[in-house]
Amino acid sequence: MKVIIIGGGLVGSLSAVFFGQRGHEVELYEYRQDPRNTALSTGRSINLALSARGRTALRAVGLEKIVLDNAVPMRGRMIHDPRGNTSPIIYDPVYNNCIYSVGRKHLNEVLLDASDKLPNVRLNFGKKLVGVNPATGVVTLKTKEGSVEDVTGDLIVGADGAYSTVRRDLMKANPINFSQTYIDHAYLELSIPAHNNHKMVPNHLHIWPRGQFMMIALPNQDDSWTVTLFMPLTCFQSLTATSDVLGFFATHFQDAIPLIGRDNLVNTYMSNRPSNLVSIKCSKYHSGSKLIIIGDAAHAMVPFYGQGMNAGFEDCSILDDLLHNHKYSTAEALEAFSRSRNPDAEAICDLAMYNYTEMRDLVNKKTFLFRKATDNFFYRMFCSKWVPLYQSVTFTNMNYRRCLDNKRWQDSVIKKIVLITLVLMVTTFLVMLGVYFSRHTASHDDGQCLAQ
Amino acid sequence: MKVIIIGGGLVGSLSAVFFGQRGHEVELYEYRQDPRNTALSTGRSINLALSARGRTALRAVGLEKIVLDNAVPMRGRMIHDPRGNTSPIIYDPVYNNCIYSVGRKHLNEVLLDASDKLPNVRLNFGKKLVGVNPATGVVTLKTKEGSVEDVTGDLIVGADGAYSTVRRDLMKANPINFSQTYIDHAYLELSIPAHNNHKMVPNHLHIWPRGQFMMIALPNQDDSWTVTLFMPLTCFQSLTATSDVLGFFATHFQDAIPLIGRDNLVNTYMSNRPSNLVSIKCSKYHSGSKLIIIGDAAHAMVPFYGQGMNAGFEDCSILDDLLHNHKYSTAEALEAFSRSRNPDAEAICDLAMYNYTEMRDLVNKKTFLFRKATDNFFYRMFCSKWVPLYQSVTFTNMNYRRCLDNKRWQDSVIKKIVLITLVLMVTTFLVMLGVYFSRHTASHDDGQCLAQ
Repeated sequence: MKVIIIGGGLVGSLSAVFFGQRGHEVELYEYRQDPRNTALSTGRSINLALSARGRTALRAVGLEKIVLDNAVPMRGRMIHDPRGNTSPIIYDPVYNNCIYSVGRKHLNEVLLDASDKLPNVRLNFGKKLVGVNPATGVVTLKTKEGSVEDVTGDLIVGADGAYSTVRRDLMKANPINFSQTYIDHAYLELSIPAHNNHKMVPNHLHIWPRGQFMMIALPNQDDSWTVTLFMPLTCFQSLTATSDVLGFFATHFQDAIPLIGRDNLVNTYMSNRPSNLVSIKCSKYHSGSKLIIIGDAAHAMVPFYGQGMNAGFEDCSILDDLLHNHKYSTAEALEAFSRSRNPDAEAICDLAMYNYTEMRDLVNKKTFLFRKATDNFFYRMFCSKWVPLYQSVTFTNMNYRRCLDNKRWQDSVIKKIVLITLVLMVTTFLVMLGVYFSRHTASHDDGQCLAQ
Repeated sequence: MKVIIIGGGLVGSLSAVFFGQRGHEVELYEYRQDPRNTALSTGRSINLALSARGRTALRAVGLEKIVLDNAVPMRGRMIHDPRGNTSPIIYDPVYNNCIYSVGRKHLNEVLLDASDKLPNVRLNFGKKLVGVNPATGVVTLKTKEGSVEDVTGDLIVGADGAYSTVRRDLMKANPINFSQTYIDHAYLELSIPAHNNHKMVPNHLHIWPRGQFMMIALPNQDDSWTVTLFMPLTCFQSLTATSDVLGFFATHFQDAIPLIGRDNLVNTYMSNRPSNLVSIKCSKYHSGSKLIIIGDAAHAMVPFYGQGMNAGFEDCSILDDLLHNHKYSTAEALEAFSRSRNPDAEAICDLAMYNYTEMRDLVNKKTFLFRKATDNFFYRMFCSKWVPLYQSVTFTNMNYRRCLDNKRWQDSVIKKIVLITLVLMVTTFLVMLGVYFSRHTASHDDGQCLAQ
């Protein structure tokens, strides 16, 4: 089978490894130059959190170890309050699972190297997709110099990101429900240089939750930290002068100023524009037997569950399984992929949106901490029978949809327990009240008897 | 000001008349040939319901009379039950307002003729939009022969329909929330020939509501009727043989078979594919000072409120007003258009979706008929103070959003009235019960007294 992969980012290059290892003829097309020969491209987040689903997919192609060897484990969140006090929230108090901070560029290079080593995989850079015909499998590409060529594949895999051209052509050919939603918040990346990191507790994802906005920091291999400030676009727009920015940080992120460094903070803030965050849902990922979209092209999400890359990698392994199970009858396998994957992808898109509220606001609330404690109590007691939402999403390969259903079931159980406890407390109180009054009346009657 | 209009359908050609009459230099580009020289194009509905908003816009450019002279008024719905009995539901029992069945082709021709008569309007057919640059106002077009040209405008108006290319380029340049939703139902057009129409009560929109599906018929000028069957795509797919189709009609639309004619029905059904129905929402309709989308390009809706064309025509008159009020400062006028029009457009998209349930199902329900009767009672009593939803959408120019808010207010008033009535009834009942028992007990006591 000849497979044409559009997009040489993380998901496209992992997909090339999967198809290549299965022995298919693979042509990958990427409009940018080979990242192995260029500096870090701007506009994309520098590091990402790798968790169970991503690891499972990397393990399937034998790349888990090399990736983890170059990653920084994070055991939990480290919460910074406005006064600079910190308190940790461990991700997995039962099994001590970690998530791993990995560099996007390094990971992309590992995946491209792995696919490049396979004789049946060809990587083509600097070729931009013009359009794809889902019926014939003809893909039209254009070089930077302007020359146009057509190539034909048995299967076209669109891994060309949130603004996918493959998806555009898939949607032209099929009645597909689609939505793209920008949140009101944008993000800007800052950094803590390696020489300044002595106050950053290592092996944690640091969070400065401030209600309507937040800042986070993920560790890099070279001991520096990548800091991301998330806040409403209107806030970014209101901080225009150097003094505004420093004043804002002094009020909300006091302890981060010496870490980032005054000059570094101001220079980075002033010379970069905040980026938008978009969530994309699409009701179907394939067209007939020749075209499929995966990763952000199928389900871009806001980054607050750290699942964008993991879900994309999981797409690769699920697609691989389905094609294998359906004996490479692509029509059936692609249909099964759309049907089974869509509810899961929409669930994680929704969860990612929800998690922003949790990260920037709820972590400061008593009710949230009580719920977290209850969850962890049951998790310790029943382990595999009671896996809290975050753990099931991050440390298992349970369908995202099931993670969400599971959470709803847990919510209903907790509600029932609280209700029963309340009823028992009220009953006990009333019984005790009855006992007290009957004694009190009895002694009063006794008194009357004596008096008579 | 040089205005470039993309799309020569109903909304594009009306927009050309508006800008032309204001004295602007107008270039209209349409990828199809001039409809005045061609037969009816397939794949679009043949006739449409013109109501207040559309009439207001046509009146503003002096075209209302000529359009109404060639339209067929419809005073109400005529409901056909499965046994062929009919019962009318009048649209406006207070002011006797009608909606008007107009032919798409005829209306388009009237609008093109009107714009063609203006010396400052140029109509260009057979030129397809390749792309538009919202920043520079450069529009790239391609002829059928393949030659490409660039034209530059001060204002680009995208009236290129639900699958708008202008919108695609607007969305590339701006972070816009967007959704497209296909309903599970599709439609197929049939017809009742003029010589067969003797059993069709004239001047009504005929409806055969059947719960999960429905059929409607709108009158044409030549005494024929255009019939549209709406039902789930799966139903269409299950009726593949001639006998299936006839059996289905015999069960559900018995009285329509002789009207359409057996052969006409089977031939039309067998030789046409059902069309999809899509609803499109877009959070912003403009880009800077040079680009705006209107009509279906901005807010395609399902056809069940008969408001698609009317909303598009209203866009033209609102845009005209705003440009005039802002003294042709396009940046301000376009911004105001997006801001004010978006909630209204989304409201009518939602209402159109809701009205499908009403038309195919609710009209058969007692609760619906009770609500309709209550609405009409208050409408007769208070006229302009209590305009029911359908009347406010169809026979006034009230903002769609306000129509919806108004309906919610009416719902709450009716709920309160029902609640107060219930409370009064229960109170009266309890008081009467008390009176009855006190009398009964009194007479009983009297009896006892006598016995003592």
